[in-house]
Amino acid sequence: MTTGLMNAAVMAKPLDIEVKQINIPEPKEDEALIKVYCIGVCGSDVHYYEHGKIGRYVVKEPIILGHELAGEVVKVGDSVTNVSVGDRVAVEPGVTCGRCDYCKSGRYNLCPDVVFLATPPVDGAWAEYITIRSDMLFKLPDTMSFEEGALLEPLSVGFHAMNRGKVTQADRVFISGLGPIGLLAIQAAKMFGVTEIYASDVVPFRRELALEMGVTDVIDPLNENVKERLEELTGGKGITVVVESSGNQRAISDTVKVVNRGGRIVFVGMPTTNEIPLDVNQFIDGEIDVYGLFRYANTYPAAIQALGKSDCNIEKIITHKYALSDIQEAVEMARTQKDTSIKIMIYPDKNNV
Amino acid sequence: MTTGLMNAAVMAKPLDIEVKQINIPEPKEDEALIKVYCIGVCGSDVHYYEHGKIGRYVVKEPIILGHELAGEVVKVGDSVTNVSVGDRVAVEPGVTCGRCDYCKSGRYNLCPDVVFLATPPVDGAWAEYITIRSDMLFKLPDTMSFEEGALLEPLSVGFHAMNRGKVTQADRVFISGLGPIGLLAIQAAKMFGVTEIYASDVVPFRRELALEMGVTDVIDPLNENVKERLEELTGGKGITVVVESSGNQRAISDTVKVVNRGGRIVFVGMPTTNEIPLDVNQFIDGEIDVYGLFRYANTYPAAIQALGKSDCNIEKIITHKYALSDIQEAVEMARTQKDTSIKIMIYPDKNNV
Amino acid sequence: MTTGLMNAAVMAKPLDIEVKQINIPEPKEDEALIKVYCIGVCGSDVHYYEHGKIGRYVVKEPIILGHELAGEVVKVGDSVTNVSVGDRVAVEPGVTCGRCDYCKSGRYNLCPDVVFLATPPVDGAWAEYITIRSDMLFKLPDTMSFEEGALLEPLSVGFHAMNRGKVTQADRVFISGLGPIGLLAIQAAKMFGVTEIYASDVVPFRRELALEMGVTDVIDPLNENVKERLEELTGGKGITVVVESSGNQRAISDTVKVVNRGGRIVFVGMPTTNEIPLDVNQFIDGEIDVYGLFRYANTYPAAIQALGKSDCNIEKIITHKYALSDIQEAVEMARTQKDTSIKIMIYPDKNNV
Amino acid sequence: MTTGLMNAAVMAKPLDIEVKQINIPEPKEDEALIKVYCIGVCGSDVHYYEHGKIGRYVVKEPIILGHELAGEVVKVGDSVTNVSVGDRVAVEPGVTCGRCDYCKSGRYNLCPDVVFLATPPVDGAWAEYITIRSDMLFKLPDTMSFEEGALLEPLSVGFHAMNRGKVTQADRVFISGLGPIGLLAIQAAKMFGVTEIYASDVVPFRRELALEMGVTDVIDPLNENVKERLEELTGGKGITVVVESSGNQRAISDTVKVVNRGGRIVFVGMPTTNEIPLDVNQFIDGEIDVYGLFRYANTYPAAIQALGKSDCNIEKIITHKYALSDIQEAVEMARTQKDTSIKIMIYPDKNNV
Repeated sequence: MTTGLMNAAVMAKPLDIEVKQINIPEPKEDEALIKVYCIGVCGSDVHYYEHGKIGRYVVKEPIILGHELAGEVVKVGDSVTNVSVGDRVAVEPGVTCGRCDYCKSGRYNLCPDVVFLATPPVDGAWAEYITIRSDMLFKLPDTMSFEEGALLEPLSVGFHAMNRGKVTQADRVFISGLGPIGLLAIQAAKMFGVTEIYASDVVPFRRELALEMGVTDVIDPLNENVKERLEELTGGKGITVVVESSGNQRAISDTVKVVNRGGRIVFVGMPTTNEIPLDVNQFIDGEIDVYGLFRYANTYPAAIQALGKSDCNIEKIITHKYALSDIQEAVEMARTQKDTSIKIMIYPDKNNV
Repeated sequence: MTTGLMNAAVMAKPLDIEVKQINIPEPKEDEALIKVYCIGVCGSDVHYYEHGKIGRYVVKEPIILGHELAGEVVKVGDSVTNVSVGDRVAVEPGVTCGRCDYCKSGRYNLCPDVVFLATPPVDGAWAEYITIRSDMLFKLPDTMSFEEGALLEPLSVGFHAMNRGKVTQADRVFISGLGPIGLLAIQAAKMFGVTEIYASDVVPFRRELALEMGVTDVIDPLNENVKERLEELTGGKGITVVVESSGNQRAISDTVKVVNRGGRIVFVGMPTTNEIPLDVNQFIDGEIDVYGLFRYANTYPAAIQALGKSDCNIEKIITHKYALSDIQEAVEMARTQKDTSIKIMIYPDKNNV
Repeated sequence: MTTGLMNAAVMAKPLDIEVKQINIPEPKEDEALIKVYCIGVCGSDVHYYEHGKIGRYVVKEPIILGHELAGEVVKVGDSVTNVSVGDRVAVEPGVTCGRCDYCKSGRYNLCPDVVFLATPPVDGAWAEYITIRSDMLFKLPDTMSFEEGALLEPLSVGFHAMNRGKVTQADRVFISGLGPIGLLAIQAAKMFGVTEIYASDVVPFRRELALEMGVTDVIDPLNENVKERLEELTGGKGITVVVESSGNQRAISDTVKVVNRGGRIVFVGMPTTNEIPLDVNQFIDGEIDVYGLFRYANTYPAAIQALGKSDCNIEKIITHKYALSDIQEAVEMARTQKDTSIKIMIYPDKNNV
Repeated sequence: MTTGLMNAAVMAKPLDIEVKQINIPEPKEDEALIKVYCIGVCGSDVHYYEHGKIGRYVVKEPIILGHELAGEVVKVGDSVTNVSVGDRVAVEPGVTCGRCDYCKSGRYNLCPDVVFLATPPVDGAWAEYITIRSDMLFKLPDTMSFEEGALLEPLSVGFHAMNRGKVTQADRVFISGLGPIGLLAIQAAKMFGVTEIYASDVVPFRRELALEMGVTDVIDPLNENVKERLEELTGGKGITVVVESSGNQRAISDTVKVVNRGGRIVFVGMPTTNEIPLDVNQFIDGEIDVYGLFRYANTYPAAIQALGKSDCNIEKIITHKYALSDIQEAVEMARTQKDTSIKIMIYPDKNNV
């Protein structure tokens, strides 16, 4: 049943994805074979699809994209003990070495030898099956859907943003940019106990979605003065933490002006140009902290625990669902309809769409 | 003896300081009267002298500058218990309110109601006597000179830079800019147990002084590739913490390139232009921390304790000494001879020069 | 209106409280006069009432007890700017010096010169009016009742327990002892984002109340094996943080056995005997942290912010309400009916009961 | 050359060690073969030798003890890249899984699947050669001796004690118990920048050694009042961190009394009885932190860096040296001469003794 052929979406070159039959992989001793239930389309997938590269990572050979997934364990290697056949699991997509200084000191997201799904030349999981080292698998409680399991990946970025920014219930948080990461950062902030969360985006649909997802209030940065509006909304107390997830140059520059003295800024969204002007004097005068964020570490167990009992509905960010056979249409939708699509979910088994 | 008149250096307008006779101040109930032994010329003093303002602080009335001082307690108010007449003391120059959220949470350097010596409209201490709230006074052990006591102020910036950057003996530290703050940051790093400290400055004299003061090695940023040189000097291990104390635009931009992934940067030196281009993508990809630094908090007791038993010789940064009567010559020296003067010390009593 | 006489409950000696007419105090320059709306009976009040002392604090002169209060500002000193007449406020009852090392480093709860309401020889607030330094006052939002304002004091202990224990949403918390502090620690844990909170008490009524207040599950330590039960309830994952608020000797000793390796314990409840046996080997082998807790610091703004938008109903712990004229009956109730009374609230103005 | 037979010290049962010829092990793909230069006798080795067990670890089969070693790489597996044949290396003796939550979050010392040298049933390194996973190897700079390399293991406990206790140059540290761990904790404190370090031990020889190794002052707990003496030595400022490395019941109980309010205690020494009475009320009133310590994590790179340039002479704790052939005499010395022996070093190659 789990030997033989499976469907997989192979991108031979930019803008060209074809669903092909390839061999179902065989798990090694410390791996499990996962039947993929659903898998999201990430901005990075779309970027590889469109440009064939992201920074230093270049697609040189045909590649399978996709790294936000959940599924069912269908086979395990001999030494696997943490999961069993039949378990519903979320997959953390970066397999780290466990032996370098970064790994040993708890910052495994900086491991130079990480093997990360859908980062060239490593294949991802837009396929029916995938094998992965079993410690990357996290059992889903019965109360969590596979979709929630797949969304743990982008939610992990939100959790990591909160950890990096040392966010607690005492903070007043402003999130700029309401793509999937920004919207899930709102949910993460709620799960960290924050009760005052403000957000901005230029797209009305996204602002409305943020309100539905429980943000305290939203700001339209094109038509409102962000700083003044935040002063007003917080009754003059101001913002203690900014999570910048838009990647927009002006939004990045504005973070320093928007945050309180002594405040913290987390940079999540990557801008399209490298050099962004920042007011270093204001930064110094305000004794501000800025934290860069690269992926995440140690987020899955906490996110599963928090999500299981929270009233957050992270599935609201799923705006479209496609079968794997329609993958190119799905990715084109993600590429061209940025104002109306947030998260697109792919289902290798059509019956699940 | 401590009533009557005293000499004080009054700056009526930029470039114009005159030593005048004014009344010796009388300590309030919770204050002490200090006979100033010596007091440094700070870059901010020189800036007020030259430009009449720093950012939002503008000299509108005649002002006495100077805030890096040590002296002797000659009179105390009725409720003062922490010091006695005859005590040799260093003076922390920022009197904070103790009642705002910043003060109560341990970040009193951000107190909006701070009364900071020599920050308009508050007078400083280029004078024979000064009164100040007694909790600003820290007794000097017999092993410490008044000069060391006065230098605790700029050394505090170095200590605060280490605290902000969470520096420990495990770090490899790079300090860019070797003015008084940079040189004392080297000393602070040594007192924090750091054994690999590198520094850069364009001025050969300053690099030589850094070597005398115990830096591991120095770099000439005009003639060497800083990044490559640091790789070489650390045997490929790289820099974990950068303390930027030059305020130079290029040095600020380069911090992100020079530090290891997962590293920390402390911004101390204020640039002359506000908007500095920073490579935000590299910052995010490297998951770097940046910490702004504004003055210091809770540094005096620790700095006195550490300095008392260290082999650091912070007095090496004193390149010139003047009597108060020659104050304008002293400040002109500081303003015009930046390559050969580091710290200039003023002595209200000529006998001490 | 706010000059003249007021009622106050004066304890001349243990077990003897009399309501007397005394002068309404006059606020100093930096103080406000508060008309007390309601004020709780704390375990420490009951202890002074019964024994005349707590540790090193001994009642030698007649004293007014009570320190958990909220009320209305009716007069302010000349330099007061943070509150105005008519403001509804909670009162933080410990006036700290703002000038010692503890205050300056953010741990003002350890200030040796604190003036704490109802701690001999300082009078408390079982009275119609009280004056206090204005930075001890925190405005209540319209959505918060005076009762909630008064309960901010014991809730602050819960908040401080979470801060001391570095509790986040990633933790699984066990709270032993369900008096007012334990019950409010549950609420605090919820506000810190914790979703798995377990609690124990020998009294069924208290366990039931904990369930009503949103604890995940409760344990009867007399009839259940706490360690095994917690393993079961957490699906084998175990407890990462224990908050010991019972003061019971066995509960204290058991904390080390109940918490996971690498876990944290916060000691809040003071035992009646000093020397408690602890398994130091298990403590070392598990690399556990233990944090003592003394009162709280910097909790009021955060607690007001969190409580305002939370679904926590902290007023549920108020089991009885009395007019100030019935104060002795109220305190007797607290002293003798520990199984059925949790928090007793006193109202100086009978109309408010 | 590195195949064939080697000498190894095999303990068949308590009090019975025999040097035998066994096969030189062959490194796996990710391992290196190390020619042991020298290896220390640890208290745990002596305890296994005397009692055949430590807590839950029981010697059931013949075992080779020893885990504090340095040597030379003589062979590497195919995938090893971090060390090469000929490298002089220290060996971190606990091979952790890299995949559990503890490992991933940076606390790998709590890894439940650790394979630790000389912890039954895992063999140690009292032998001519040993194989170990290559990420456990740390290159020694030319300035460091093999003896220093071997002592990095107990020094790591000292480093970890400083990390656990959040020790900085601002602290005043008291170390109780001056066995190898206590003496090396002094060195660790110095490398962390601490300038006021006090220590106690009942044995005069150990106190003298501590003074030679740079402690500020020593106390004889049998003939001096520790608390009063520390007050005196610190000029009334008191102790901010206690490192308890004696395991003595009274010393453990006294930690709470000796440390300042707001201070920190690190428990390192394991007592012979489990239940130690602690004054929990004083602990709570002082808002003290206590940290258990189990082995260490992430200490080797930092300790090598710090030691390389420090003026600490950790080799002073080596009081005796033996060839491997005299191992039983060495261990008997350690077991019976506790007052005069501190660290005993074993040399598999007689020429090095």
